Amino acid sequence: MFLTRSEYDRGVNTFSPEGRLFQVEYAIEAIKLGSTAVGICTSEGVILAVEKRLTSPLLTPSSIEKVLEIDTHIGAAMSGLTADARTLIDHGRIVTQEHRFTYDEPLSVESTTQSLCDLALRFGEDGRDDGADAMARPFGVALLIAGVDESGPALYHTDPSGTYVKWMAKAIGAGSEGAQTALQEAWSAGMTLAEAEGLALKTLKAVMEEKVSGENVEVAAVTAESGKFKVYGKEQLMECIGRL
Amino acid sequence: MFLTRSEYDRGVNTFSPEGRLFQVEYAIEAIKLGSTAVGICTSEGVILAVEKRLTSPLLTPSSIEKVLEIDTHIGAAMSGLTADARTLIDHGRIVTQEHRFTYDEPLSVESTTQSLCDLALRFGEDGRDDGADAMARPFGVALLIAGVDESGPALYHTDPSGTYVKWMAKAIGAGSEGAQTALQEAWSAGMTLAEAEGLALKTLKAVMEEKVSGENVEVAAVTAESGKFKVYGKEQLMECIGRL
Amino acid sequence: MFLTRSEYDRGVNTFSPEGRLFQVEYAIEAIKLGSTAVGICTSEGVILAVEKRLTSPLLTPSSIEKVLEIDTHIGAAMSGLTADARTLIDHGRIVTQEHRFTYDEPLSVESTTQSLCDLALRFGEDGRDDGADAMARPFGVALLIAGVDESGPALYHTDPSGTYVKWMAKAIGAGSEGAQTALQEAWSAGMTLAEAEGLALKTLKAVMEEKVSGENVEVAAVTAESGKFKVYGKEQLMECIGRL
Amino acid sequence: MFLTRSEYDRGVNTFSPEGRLFQVEYAIEAIKLGSTAVGICTSEGVILAVEKRLTSPLLTPSSIEKVLEIDTHIGAAMSGLTADARTLIDHGRIVTQEHRFTYDEPLSVESTTQSLCDLALRFGEDGRDDGADAMARPFGVALLIAGVDESGPALYHTDPSGTYVKWMAKAIGAGSEGAQTALQEAWSAGMTLAEAEGLALKTLKAVMEEKVSGENVEVAAVTAESGKFKVYGKEQLMECIGRL
Amino acid sequence: MFLTRSEYDRGVNTFSPEGRLFQVEYAIEAIKLGSTAVGICTSEGVILAVEKRLTSPLLTPSSIEKVLEIDTHIGAAMSGLTADARTLIDHGRIVTQEHRFTYDEPLSVESTTQSLCDLALRFGEDGRDDGADAMARPFGVALLIAGVDESGPALYHTDPSGTYVKWMAKAIGAGSEGAQTALQEAWSAGMTLAEAEGLALKTLKAVMEEKVSGENVEVAAVTAESGKFKVYGKEQLMECIGRL
Amino acid sequence: MFLTRSEYDRGVNTFSPEGRLFQVEYAIEAIKLGSTAVGICTSEGVILAVEKRLTSPLLTPSSIEKVLEIDTHIGAAMSGLTADARTLIDHGRIVTQEHRFTYDEPLSVESTTQSLCDLALRFGEDGRDDGADAMARPFGVALLIAGVDESGPALYHTDPSGTYVKWMAKAIGAGSEGAQTALQEAWSAGMTLAEAEGLALKTLKAVMEEKVSGENVEVAAVTAESGKFKVYGKEQLMECIGRL
Amino acid sequence: MFLTRSEYDRGVNTFSPEGRLFQVEYAIEAIKLGSTAVGICTSEGVILAVEKRLTSPLLTPSSIEKVLEIDTHIGAAMSGLTADARTLIDHGRIVTQEHRFTYDEPLSVESTTQSLCDLALRFGEDGRDDGADAMARPFGVALLIAGVDESGPALYHTDPSGTYVKWMAKAIGAGSEGAQTALQEAWSAGMTLAEAEGLALKTLKAVMEEKVSGENVEVAAVTAESGKFKVYGKEQLMECIGRL
Repeated sequence: MFLTRSEYDRGVNTFSPEGRLFQVEYAIEAIKLGSTAVGICTSEGVILAVEKRLTSPLLTPSSIEKVLEIDTHIGAAMSGLTADARTLIDHGRIVTQEHRFTYDEPLSVESTTQSLCDLALRFGEDGRDDGADAMARPFGVALLIAGVDESGPALYHTDPSGTYVKWMAKAIGAGSEGAQTALQEAWSAGMTLAEAEGLALKTLKAVMEEKVSGENVEVAAVTAESGKFKVYGKEQLMECIGRL
Repeated sequence: MFLTRSEYDRGVNTFSPEGRLFQVEYAIEAIKLGSTAVGICTSEGVILAVEKRLTSPLLTPSSIEKVLEIDTHIGAAMSGLTADARTLIDHGRIVTQEHRFTYDEPLSVESTTQSLCDLALRFGEDGRDDGADAMARPFGVALLIAGVDESGPALYHTDPSGTYVKWMAKAIGAGSEGAQTALQEAWSAGMTLAEAEGLALKTLKAVMEEKVSGENVEVAAVTAESGKFKVYGKEQLMECIGRL
Repeated sequence: MFLTRSEYDRGVNTFSPEGRLFQVEYAIEAIKLGSTAVGICTSEGVILAVEKRLTSPLLTPSSIEKVLEIDTHIGAAMSGLTADARTLIDHGRIVTQEHRFTYDEPLSVESTTQSLCDLALRFGEDGRDDGADAMARPFGVALLIAGVDESGPALYHTDPSGTYVKWMAKAIGAGSEGAQTALQEAWSAGMTLAEAEGLALKTLKAVMEEKVSGENVEVAAVTAESGKFKVYGKEQLMECIGRL
Repeated sequence: MFLTRSEYDRGVNTFSPEGRLFQVEYAIEAIKLGSTAVGICTSEGVILAVEKRLTSPLLTPSSIEKVLEIDTHIGAAMSGLTADARTLIDHGRIVTQEHRFTYDEPLSVESTTQSLCDLALRFGEDGRDDGADAMARPFGVALLIAGVDESGPALYHTDPSGTYVKWMAKAIGAGSEGAQTALQEAWSAGMTLAEAEGLALKTLKAVMEEKVSGENVEVAAVTAESGKFKVYGKEQLMECIGRL
Repeated sequence: MFLTRSEYDRGVNTFSPEGRLFQVEYAIEAIKLGSTAVGICTSEGVILAVEKRLTSPLLTPSSIEKVLEIDTHIGAAMSGLTADARTLIDHGRIVTQEHRFTYDEPLSVESTTQSLCDLALRFGEDGRDDGADAMARPFGVALLIAGVDESGPALYHTDPSGTYVKWMAKAIGAGSEGAQTALQEAWSAGMTLAEAEGLALKTLKAVMEEKVSGENVEVAAVTAESGKFKVYGKEQLMECIGRL
Repeated sequence: MFLTRSEYDRGVNTFSPEGRLFQVEYAIEAIKLGSTAVGICTSEGVILAVEKRLTSPLLTPSSIEKVLEIDTHIGAAMSGLTADARTLIDHGRIVTQEHRFTYDEPLSVESTTQSLCDLALRFGEDGRDDGADAMARPFGVALLIAGVDESGPALYHTDPSGTYVKWMAKAIGAGSEGAQTALQEAWSAGMTLAEAEGLALKTLKAVMEEKVSGENVEVAAVTAESGKFKVYGKEQLMECIGRL
Repeated sequence: MFLTRSEYDRGVNTFSPEGRLFQVEYAIEAIKLGSTAVGICTSEGVILAVEKRLTSPLLTPSSIEKVLEIDTHIGAAMSGLTADARTLIDHGRIVTQEHRFTYDEPLSVESTTQSLCDLALRFGEDGRDDGADAMARPFGVALLIAGVDESGPALYHTDPSGTYVKWMAKAIGAGSEGAQTALQEAWSAGMTLAEAEGLALKTLKAVMEEKVSGENVEVAAVTAESGKFKVYGKEQLMECIGRL
């Protein structure tokens, strides 16, 4: 959707007469310019798969990290402004470590997600004393947060408005529209993690302009069994692609 | 009502020549874009019922929480910007716990409501020292606050201007106009909680585009007898819907 | 009076070429949108009577409080933005209690009124350290403050500019023009409190669109004899109306 | 003088190309909307006389205080925004008391005047640490400050620009132009305080629309003999008027 | 010179494309509206002479102080906004006293001048911690600073840009153009202080609309011999004028 | 690419309707006005080569430093606003020294790069307490950061958005488009450091208007063997050029 | 070069679409309005020569200091806003003294220059805690910094962007274009200090409208031999001019 120009869209915190906050909506547009990411949740665990745009063969693919660990049991895939995502994820890393330090237990996936959204909501404020990095504008990034906790595997989606929702399968970024439709058709409740892995890669493949290779996609999984989040190594990734 | 454009409507705290604060009125418009919520008060307790918009079958309905507990005896249904509601309700949770800690008694429903409204009124201020989360703009959310205290069951409605009023039955959100008319016709002083439960669901049903199911509505109750606020579980909710 | 548009009316603290502060004048307009309130001072005490606008039969009339106690010997009736009035009155409650605590005596009615006006005057300032709630805009509310102290009964009127004046009889809000004329004709120096009570209700009745009932008006009195401010209970109010 | 509109007149601290500060000039205009005040200095003491605008017979004249004591030996008459004057005079009261406390002597009339002007000059600044109430805009008020100190009786005039000048006889407010001409014609160096009292009242009378009464004017004097500033009581005031 | 309007002239610290700071230039215009002042430096000392505009015979001429002592060996004549000058001179008084207190010696005339210019340069800054009174706009005043120190008599001129220059003879204010030309023609290196006194008064006389009297001019001198700055008393001033 | 004008491009932190941050994009344009820099990574080490624009023969070439050491094992080449680069590199020097001091080990190349990007991302914020030099606007500079750590040699590119990516060979500045194409054609995985040195100089030569000399280029290298970053001395540089 | 007007040139820190910072460029224009200054570096030392504009014969030429000592071994010539230069040079004096105090050695010429540029770069920031005088706008001044340290004589040029470059011979100010061309033609590497002195004066002479005299130019030198910076006295200056 292309947004019509408005006289209410430059103030970071100005409501339009229809009750819309345009700067937040524009930040959401920034995500539609980003690379596509896909997340699928099964009872065995969660799969994240992300496209990496390699604009040049001289660029080192491994330095473009679109999937990052937050804590041993939680990770996130991103689409939008990479530097903004780094700020959010760093915040998540601190929050989860503080929780472990204070309570000696992992923070739940939902609480981790909420702490990121609380930070995202606070744009345009200054002088906060708790040291978290509130920005002068909305964060221009969406995250797919995957983790496992006492309630089992979970996949959350966050957007610049500070809203989060739990999904069984969700796509974000430039190819999200087509990818989401594909996920909706193919996803089923009884899927295995292996099937989800295949579906995630197939979905990415369909929306990517280039051929899927070991360098232009990144896959990660968190399994209910191990309770650990792991980004696939080169070998594991090539096997995956081989199975396509 | 659609508001005519004005030259006084972008400053967060600017009065128009007629003495209106447009940014507050626009924030109230944001609520009219939200999902419908209904609250009904009887002498036996209060019922809250909320529509949940499930934009995709892959979305986990239970992660969209439109009814939240504030304290064991108080809860709230929301319509408007979800992230804003979370900030208000988190504030209410702290205020009620602090009261319990200091005075060893539950905070009354009205005092809880007033503490949320005090926060809502303070938009556009900075540098407050008491740690509460005043925002740079009005909160774009309305709440129906239901609780039981020494004065019996009570239902309050709050809006972005920081005003609160007690109602016997109140609807908010996109379908509020039709729903309020329906409530006004059907409500009677001697209603039982069971009748109120039925009326709430019937009212929601009338304004929802989709068929009411165990996934796209949420119901909660606080009873004078138990003094406890409880969101209905799946089973209890399905029984409710069955009785429609 | 409708104010002509000006190019000097958006800055909260901008003088127009004629030396006017438009944002304060617009805040005064906000009061003309409010419900009518009437106050009458006699040598026996002061009567406050306020209209309550009940926009729906489902609304609980008692939750719309337009007359509030500030200290045992002082109360106020309001017209305009209810949430703004709450902030002012809360400030008054703190000031009077602090005075009692420090000096072990009630604060005089004029000093209480002045403390509210000092707060009202300070809009547009930030970073005050004394904890009082200065706002980013003028308070959009007028108060009728009634009390009894060593100098006997007193009635003060405050407006958004931070000015206060003592009146024998004063009306504020939407119907204030007609009501003030009526008061001026009927008021006499030797009135008893009972006569004042009747005049206040008759004056309200004349400017209200709906029939006066025990639910849509509120009456309060502070008497020289008792030195106490009391909002009328239902019974006392119905007797009053019966005497009309 | 009516000021022509300018593009430089909205910034509180913006010079126009001719080197004028329009917001200060507009604040001075605010004074021309105020009630008239007259001050006359003689070798025996200083007289202040002020018009009070009684817009309604129900208003209590004594609550409109246009002449206020600053210290036992100094007082001030005001014209313009009453609430602004209160802030200035409260500041003066603190400054004079602090001086007495520290040096055990009264503060001179000129030093008192200067302390008020220093505050008036500081509009548009924030973050001052000395607790004085600098405002976001110029103070919209003029004062006639009358007092007696070691140098004898003195009358000072202050305006919103923070400038003060000593006068033998000075008028401010709506009727100031006519009143000043009258003072200039009638004043003589050898006047007694009684003659000054008569001249002040006669001057006010000439510019007031209503008949002078014991309620619509206020007179105060500070005498070289007693060294005390005193606002006339009702009786003393009526005698004065009787002598007219 | 009348300045052409520009789109760069309202920001206090905005350069125009030609590298000009218009708000400073406009502040300099404010001085051209002020009364004329003249300073003349000789080897025997420095003379300052200032016009006083007596807009009314009721005004006390002695209260319009256009020449003020800064320290016993330094004084200043001003033209422009009087209240701004007071702030600068108060700053100079503190700086010179602090120097005496710390080093037990008078501060040199140039250092005193520089301390005033440092303050003048700092407009538009906030949050300075050293307590000096930086303003939100340029100071709208020019000073002629006259003093005697180890290097002998000196005359400095300061303007709103914070620049200072040493002059042998300098005129500022409304009549400065004509006065400066007169000084240039008449000044000679070997002048006595008496001749300078005569030249200063003659120069003022030529640009004043009114006849020079003991009330509408002010003269001060600092002599190399005494090392003291002294404003002329009435008698000394009348002698001066008699010699014209 | 020349950017079309937009109404959303002046606010430092304003999203356009397409989700773009124009001020960041404009800062990136500032780099395209800068001198060209080239970096090439091999398994033996990293080469940086930079053009120096000598606008006059009187300018001392050695004072234009476009390649600077950050720590003994890391250095950076810059293109864009030189003074901005200095701020970033000073920050990097502090960060790497603090790491050595605390952990007694060199900071990795990626962590060093990330600390610079964190600072770059924080433009438009104020009141940070950690002392780092966040600016009011985006940094108008790109860096090529070359270093050696436990993972071997690495070359990172940073831009004003706070994004960093690892490259095998990368060109920035005015001639970057042509230079990058040349690098892409000539770079091969098995290159020696000597070959990379030759390629870097040849690439620069192709985009420079002037003849390459010992004065208008600067070369630096960090080798896996020594682990040290070194800017070439005159002699070493001349040998390089001789080999062209 | 005259700059075309732009819509991006009023924000102190706004990039234009081409990546330019106009307010910095306009500040550089301010320098082109200033008097001309010339600096020449030889192996024996550095010469600074500056034009002084004497707008009146009554002005004391020695009070216009365009060449100032920073430390015993460093000095600077300025062109542009004099008061801005004073702030920069005062900062340099503190920095060099602090260095001597802490390390008991002179600060190098380049480090001194860099400390001034760091301050110059920080315009538009507030709330810095290190006490240095960051301004709200770019400094409108260029400096030629001449000094001698362990590396021998050095001449640096700084501009409002906070950039500095080392030159063998450099001219700034109104006549800089012609002067720079002259320097470029006449300068040679083997020049003696005496020849440089002659060239500097000859270059100034060529661009000055008035005849060079002992009053309208200022010359200073720092020699490798003495290591001291000295502004020429009258006698030494006249000899110089005599040799022209």
